[in-house]
Amino acid sequence: MKTDPASVVQRLIPHRTPAQEQATAYAPSNIALSKYWGKRDEALKLPLTGSLSVSLGALGTHMKIQAAEEDHFALYGKPQTPDSPAYKRLFAFIDLFRDPMTCLHIESHNTIPMGAGLASSASAFAAAVLALNELYGWALDLQSLSILARLGSGSACRSIAHGFMEWLPGEQEDGLDSFAIPLTLDWPEFRIGILTLSETEKAIGSGEGMLRTLQTSTLYKSWPDQVARDLPRIREAVQNRDLVQLGETAEQNALSMHATMISAWPPLLYWQPKSIQVLHKIHALRSQGLSVYATMDAGPNVKLLFNRDQQQDLTAHFPALTIIDPFAGAGDVLNHE
Amino acid sequence: MKTDPASVVQRLIPHRTPAQEQATAYAPSNIALSKYWGKRDEALKLPLTGSLSVSLGALGTHMKIQAAEEDHFALYGKPQTPDSPAYKRLFAFIDLFRDPMTCLHIESHNTIPMGAGLASSASAFAAAVLALNELYGWALDLQSLSILARLGSGSACRSIAHGFMEWLPGEQEDGLDSFAIPLTLDWPEFRIGILTLSETEKAIGSGEGMLRTLQTSTLYKSWPDQVARDLPRIREAVQNRDLVQLGETAEQNALSMHATMISAWPPLLYWQPKSIQVLHKIHALRSQGLSVYATMDAGPNVKLLFNRDQQQDLTAHFPALTIIDPFAGAGDVLNHE
Repeated sequence: MKTDPASVVQRLIPHRTPAQEQATAYAPSNIALSKYWGKRDEALKLPLTGSLSVSLGALGTHMKIQAAEEDHFALYGKPQTPDSPAYKRLFAFIDLFRDPMTCLHIESHNTIPMGAGLASSASAFAAAVLALNELYGWALDLQSLSILARLGSGSACRSIAHGFMEWLPGEQEDGLDSFAIPLTLDWPEFRIGILTLSETEKAIGSGEGMLRTLQTSTLYKSWPDQVARDLPRIREAVQNRDLVQLGETAEQNALSMHATMISAWPPLLYWQPKSIQVLHKIHALRSQGLSVYATMDAGPNVKLLFNRDQQQDLTAHFPALTIIDPFAGAGDVLNHE
Repeated sequence: MKTDPASVVQRLIPHRTPAQEQATAYAPSNIALSKYWGKRDEALKLPLTGSLSVSLGALGTHMKIQAAEEDHFALYGKPQTPDSPAYKRLFAFIDLFRDPMTCLHIESHNTIPMGAGLASSASAFAAAVLALNELYGWALDLQSLSILARLGSGSACRSIAHGFMEWLPGEQEDGLDSFAIPLTLDWPEFRIGILTLSETEKAIGSGEGMLRTLQTSTLYKSWPDQVARDLPRIREAVQNRDLVQLGETAEQNALSMHATMISAWPPLLYWQPKSIQVLHKIHALRSQGLSVYATMDAGPNVKLLFNRDQQQDLTAHFPALTIIDPFAGAGDVLNHE
C-alpha cells in the first residue's frame, strides 16, 4: 500500500498530547537557486530532483499555536473563516498531527512584503511544524522537522533553518530520505533584490504548474539533467563565495525551469511584459560590467542576485528594489535548537 | 575528407556556361510550423531534425540575373557596395556556381513588408538558385534545386515551391538526401497574420543562435523528441485541414524552440515585452472561443495562425495585422517547371 502523509507523521512523532499551553516559532521564507520543479509523488510532495535554496533571514512567518476551546486561525491578526482556502489548507495539515479532540488557536504573521512574489507557504508550514514541535515537546531533529514541513508544502522543508539549504530528493517510497540539510556555510556579502512587478494572483499555482509541465512538456525530460549539472555548481559556488558561478548557474537554472513551463501545453507563461523588460535590463547591466543575475519562480517577478558592493549601483537602476540580507542577524539554525 | 559546399554544387550542376543572356525567378518566403533549429553540419547547413513550413505566396523575392561586364548587385533598385554584408553573402553563394570569369548583374526585390520579422534570406537564396537554373539552362529537378538553395540558407530549401513543404533532414554526410518536398496539399482557408512588434535588427542571428543553443542548452537535448512528436502531427493536421491540431502543435513547437533558446547561456531572449503581451492576448482570445494560434521565429515578432472565418474578429483585436493568404493565386510549383 502506498504511504500517505498521515502514516509518515505517525512514524515520526512520539505522541499527540500537548506538553505546554502554547508555543511560538519563526521560519524564514526561502528562494531556490537550483529549483524544485516536478514531483515524483504528489501526496507526499516528493521531488523528482534535488534543489538548493537560501533562506531569507528576517522575511518569513511568525506563528503562535495554543491549546484552545475551539479552532481559530488569525492571519495578521485578522480571523479567517473556516471555509477560506488558507484556513482549510492549514488545518488539513494540523489535523495530521493532533489528537482529533484537541482544538488549537493559531496566529500567523508574515514579514514578507505583500505581493513581492515570495511564497509564504514555505515559511508558514515550516513555522507550523516548529511551533507544533514546541507545543507537543517532541524534540525532533532537523531531519524529521524537514520531512514533516515538506508534507505541507514541498519547499517548506528548506525553510526550517537559515542560510543555504540543500533538499536531498531521496529515493524511498515513504520519503523518509527526502529532507533539507543546512550547508552550514555563510556568505555575509550575498544579497537578494526583490522587484515587485505584479501583485495579481497567478492563475495557475505552482503545484498545478509542475504537474502540467511534467505531463505535457517534452523538454522537461531533460530537466533532471539540468539540475544534475546546476546543483553541484551552485553548492561549489557557495563554498567558494563565487558570485559569477552562482549567478550564472542560478539564472540559467531559473530560465530553464521557465523554459519547461513555456514548452508545456497549454503554455505556462508566468512572464509578464515587465518580466522581459527587467531580464533585458539585467543583461544590459551585466554587459556594462555589473555583477547581477536573475532568478524567477512560478510567477512574473524577478529576483536579483548580487553582492553588497553592487548594491548602490543597482538601487540607482532599480529604485523600487527591496534588498534582502539573508545572513543579517540570523543564526544558522532556528529556535528549536 | 569532409564534403564542402563547392563539391556538392560540382556534383549537381552539369556545366558553368550561361545558356541565355538573363533570367528572372521568384521564390516565396516561408514560415516553419515545425521549426528548424540546430544543424548537424554547419558548412552544408544540414539540420538535426526535419521541419515543415508553409510558403508565403506572394511574399518573397523576385530576382533577375544577367551576364555582365562586371559584378553588380542592386536591392530594391539600390546598388549595394561590394563590402556590404548582403553583397558579400550573395556573391559568396553565386561563386559556388559560376565560372570565375563570368560576371553577373543581379537585381533583387523583396515583396516582404520591411521589418515584419520575415526572413528574406530564405526566399532570396531560393530565387537565386531558380534564376541560375534558368540562366545556365541546367533543368535541375526540385530536389537538386532544394539542395542547392539549402547551401545558401538552410530554410531556403523550403522556399523553392509554394504550399506546405517538408524538409527531410537526411542522414548522409554529403547532404544529398537533405531537401524539401512539396506536400501537394492546399488549404485555401488557412491564413497567417503578421504583427510587427519590433523593427530593430536582432543582435544575434539565427545561425549563431542555433549554435549557442546546441552548445549550451541542456533542454535542447530533448528538442529532437519534440520535433519527432510535432512534425507528423502537423503533417496530419494539414492533410485533414484541422486548424486546432495544426495550431496547438505549431504553437507548442514554436514556444518549445524559444524555450531551448531561453535555456541557453548567455540566454537567447528574442522576446520583447510586446511579444509576451501578444502571447497573453492570443491565449485570452482562445479562452473566449477564437481559434487562433501563435508561432514565432528567432525574433520578437508573433505570427498568428487561423482560418479565414476568424479574420474579421482578429483584425478587430489586432488592427495592425498583416494577413497572408498562402494559397492566393499560387500554383504548387514555381516557374522552373
